[in-house]
Amino acid sequence: MDSRVVGILGGGQLGRMLVEAANRLDVETLILDAENAPAKQIRSSEKHVTGSFADEKSVRELAEKVDILTIEIEHVDTTVLFELEKEKGDKLEIHPSPATIRLIQDKYLQKEFLIEKGITTADCIKVESTEQALAEVGEKYGYPYMLKSRTQAYDGRGNFVVSSAEHIPEALKALHSRPLYAEKWCPFTKELAVMVLREKDGIVSSYPTVETIQQNNICHLVYAPARVPDSVQLKARNLAERAIASFSGAGVYGVEMFLLPSGEILLNEIAPRPHNSGHYTIDACATSQFEAHMRAILGLPIPKKNGLSMSTAYTNAIMLNVLGGVKPNSELELCRRALTTKGATVHLYGKGTRPGRKMGHINIVAGSMDECETRLAQIQGEDSETETERVVKPSPLVGIIMGSDSDLPVMATGARILQQFDVPFEVTITSAHRTPFRMTKYATEAASRGVKTIIAGAGGAAHLPGMVAAMTTLPVIGVPVKGSTLDGVDSLYSIVQMPRGIPVATVAINNATNAALLAIRNLAAFIPEYQLKLEEYYAGIEKEVLDKADRLENIGFESYLAK
Amino acid sequence: MDSRVVGILGGGQLGRMLVEAANRLDVETLILDAENAPAKQIRSSEKHVTGSFADEKSVRELAEKVDILTIEIEHVDTTVLFELEKEKGDKLEIHPSPATIRLIQDKYLQKEFLIEKGITTADCIKVESTEQALAEVGEKYGYPYMLKSRTQAYDGRGNFVVSSAEHIPEALKALHSRPLYAEKWCPFTKELAVMVLREKDGIVSSYPTVETIQQNNICHLVYAPARVPDSVQLKARNLAERAIASFSGAGVYGVEMFLLPSGEILLNEIAPRPHNSGHYTIDACATSQFEAHMRAILGLPIPKKNGLSMSTAYTNAIMLNVLGGVKPNSELELCRRALTTKGATVHLYGKGTRPGRKMGHINIVAGSMDECETRLAQIQGEDSETETERVVKPSPLVGIIMGSDSDLPVMATGARILQQFDVPFEVTITSAHRTPFRMTKYATEAASRGVKTIIAGAGGAAHLPGMVAAMTTLPVIGVPVKGSTLDGVDSLYSIVQMPRGIPVATVAINNATNAALLAIRNLAAFIPEYQLKLEEYYAGIEKEVLDKADRLENIGFESYLAK
Repeated sequence: MDSRVVGILGGGQLGRMLVEAANRLDVETLILDAENAPAKQIRSSEKHVTGSFADEKSVRELAEKVDILTIEIEHVDTTVLFELEKEKGDKLEIHPSPATIRLIQDKYLQKEFLIEKGITTADCIKVESTEQALAEVGEKYGYPYMLKSRTQAYDGRGNFVVSSAEHIPEALKALHSRPLYAEKWCPFTKELAVMVLREKDGIVSSYPTVETIQQNNICHLVYAPARVPDSVQLKARNLAERAIASFSGAGVYGVEMFLLPSGEILLNEIAPRPHNSGHYTIDACATSQFEAHMRAILGLPIPKKNGLSMSTAYTNAIMLNVLGGVKPNSELELCRRALTTKGATVHLYGKGTRPGRKMGHINIVAGSMDECETRLAQIQGEDSETETERVVKPSPLVGIIMGSDSDLPVMATGARILQQFDVPFEVTITSAHRTPFRMTKYATEAASRGVKTIIAGAGGAAHLPGMVAAMTTLPVIGVPVKGSTLDGVDSLYSIVQMPRGIPVATVAINNATNAALLAIRNLAAFIPEYQLKLEEYYAGIEKEVLDKADRLENIGFESYLAK
Repeated sequence: MDSRVVGILGGGQLGRMLVEAANRLDVETLILDAENAPAKQIRSSEKHVTGSFADEKSVRELAEKVDILTIEIEHVDTTVLFELEKEKGDKLEIHPSPATIRLIQDKYLQKEFLIEKGITTADCIKVESTEQALAEVGEKYGYPYMLKSRTQAYDGRGNFVVSSAEHIPEALKALHSRPLYAEKWCPFTKELAVMVLREKDGIVSSYPTVETIQQNNICHLVYAPARVPDSVQLKARNLAERAIASFSGAGVYGVEMFLLPSGEILLNEIAPRPHNSGHYTIDACATSQFEAHMRAILGLPIPKKNGLSMSTAYTNAIMLNVLGGVKPNSELELCRRALTTKGATVHLYGKGTRPGRKMGHINIVAGSMDECETRLAQIQGEDSETETERVVKPSPLVGIIMGSDSDLPVMATGARILQQFDVPFEVTITSAHRTPFRMTKYATEAASRGVKTIIAGAGGAAHLPGMVAAMTTLPVIGVPVKGSTLDGVDSLYSIVQMPRGIPVATVAINNATNAALLAIRNLAAFIPEYQLKLEEYYAGIEKEVLDKADRLENIGFESYLAK
């Protein structure tokens, strides 16, 4: 795709996945890292450089061989990058810019810069490594507060929670001889992250907002998209994009944020490179964070509108990090279970096994987050069944509700149709008049539980279907149930004559069969498996009538009637 | 994932993509092919073997270093494979088995074997390389017929169409000194292909049926799934699975078939390895054909149920081969346009550019085949706009139909709602009673055009909604239109009181607004963007009422009434 050579400072898993993306684009990469580093394994070359990305000589050696330099880790020697920038001029591009890398390396300078740009972050303050200074912070911020190393910190290393004045000596010991800053305690409800792409022309765009779950300070799980309202997702992306727009240099940036109980979002920190929270993009997005990074630094195009969105509007993903187990290779058991799980993909990094080491990750994609979680549970071995083939109880796609159990004989005919079509469904009773709050809860929560259509049956002054329709955006199908007076016309009018704005899909009186078939048609418009079943069903009922016609023609109408 | 080493005979693009899959699973691969072959480029190793997969010594050299041998091309030296099978016993697995490879190498033996197993193929006959023999074939099969080389044939090379007796000398010249067979002309309507996975235990499963479009005898485009009815897709998969079940050895197999005008499917030929028609699986399926092959030969698990299905039930894909252009690297222009196209992924093989050479491929995925085709046109530069950002006219998701233009004033209110929500829709007139055939055409074709919900309005003896519902599996929403007598109750009853089996989602009399909102709810259950818009809409109408309440409370009911 491009004849220029890209040099990568660092050849760990992030470098490896950058190389994988470059291989597909037929772009040559050269790596600076130890012999046989993960990234080097998947790009044959005699020109890789053996050494450290923090060593000036090695960085210069790599720079001699490439047209573009990028990083997979920010703890590189920036002094030499600034020198190279000057010496090489147009002959070498460095992404992100040395200035950006240096700024981000020092977390305190990073925060100062962001605050100056109007980005909201947790309150923080520079602090000397003395007991007195730390005690002053305690008086200012209260306890607990976070004491953090300004540099060389990752995966929770370099952070210390100062829970009380008594813990100050311990904190100083843990972070001795490091430049420090203190941060006000941030009682967040969730940790969010957004991968932002910055193109050479300064245009920024972003992947969906995700939720990260840490375990022992290491990223354990990523939920994509984050399980927060869309408005919060959007706010997080806006904040992340604004922050990255203020830096220089092309590539992807990982932006970690805190969501507070108030709904406010604070920026926590930035990684100027692909990030663990973006690994899901390999399987869930048309263009992965790694390919996006390569394209950005090479100046190759990215689709402008929604280019980074998930593959289809229907996809959810969970990423699970694979950490080295206590026994060598014991983590492969997890991977093996992933191989038996639909929609799961295993990515291993070619590293020697070591307890707690990031050995790989597993991406799980599915049509709903519920399904992702069921698959995750299977991979984590949390359910008792150990068979490779496991029956996952699917979450209901259709909810059948009725105002009273007296409606059940009618509604059951619909339930049987759903059974016949293998559609996951649920049946319950909730009355608009007698259990209005239960009805409200049902109506407002159904969509988020994965229900796609609600069937509501009611008789008399039949309010249930219309009231539920008023409190959800799901399609609601109403079944007028015939009472002892008025022949069901009362229910029919109550259900069908809804005011402008709130539709109820009304079927014939007592015809729950049709309600179920209508629900299946709604599903079948998007899920081909149900369309096939509908086609079979209709072929079946057509045949039934044809058989009767045949019989009638054969035996004559009088004999037919006599039977 | 596995400490065993896999040797691959051949290091072209298929080998390269096998290696890519092995890299992700952290499985070591060694390649036998020329120096710097595409597959070698993406796996650093000093143990790769330089030489030919048809050369005994080289094959033996590779076999010494690996635990499992597999192929990326069937034209290998099978004699040595048979010898190795005997000599090495349990110490070396060969997939597929040497017997399978030899059988498939000779296309005529392959056909004989398949016919014996009861698989339908085109009629064929062994033939000597003489004019007389070929003339006899002409008498038997008629002209044109296919003359084919039994061995060493690929991408159309080794095939000759004998259009008349006069062409016999030319045919003999083209295929001189090759072992030949003749095949009856097969007037197919489409070429289909299925990738079948055979596990070590003999279990076979398959990817979706695809449609291949050849250009100059080389695979040009692949449509996944094939644009044929589901029943035909299923039939093709069954045939392909039955065929592969009869071979021995694990791995993926490409099965090429002809679809005849009668609907019959004939098996054309089999490739005992990953295949060009399966490249789409890299981006459209959770597990690619390459990873499936690696897992199968290593005995690693595959999800049992639908493990090879496309990522979500909603995905369609097109694969476009990238062939070397007339000018060096001119094919990169195509790739560049692909990079600007949403849902497109470029895969380049690291080969030197040469006119007509398979340099790479582009996978396009989208929620509908229409969308895939629009994106394909963009990549092929077939539309006049050269902007990277192009407005694609989306195909309608909702169809509004009515029995008469007198219904339009009512139905237009629904159309306006769809406009307001940016839902692609179409509006037309078709009457159950006056244009019954037009109605039939509309009803039967709507689903395959991508329409997800039909809104039908009718008055009086309102048959349109119910008749359309009887001829489609799509959800149909009925709008009873009020006529000059009976106040619309006639239409309401006609539409809502459908018999068991055929539902119509009926809304209030004249309330096309609600019909449109119901259609949007149907979409929103699967397309989050519409759910967001619905939430906004309902917040808007809630606010409207709240404002009125506010006003009423402020100015009092008499003043309010007076306005």
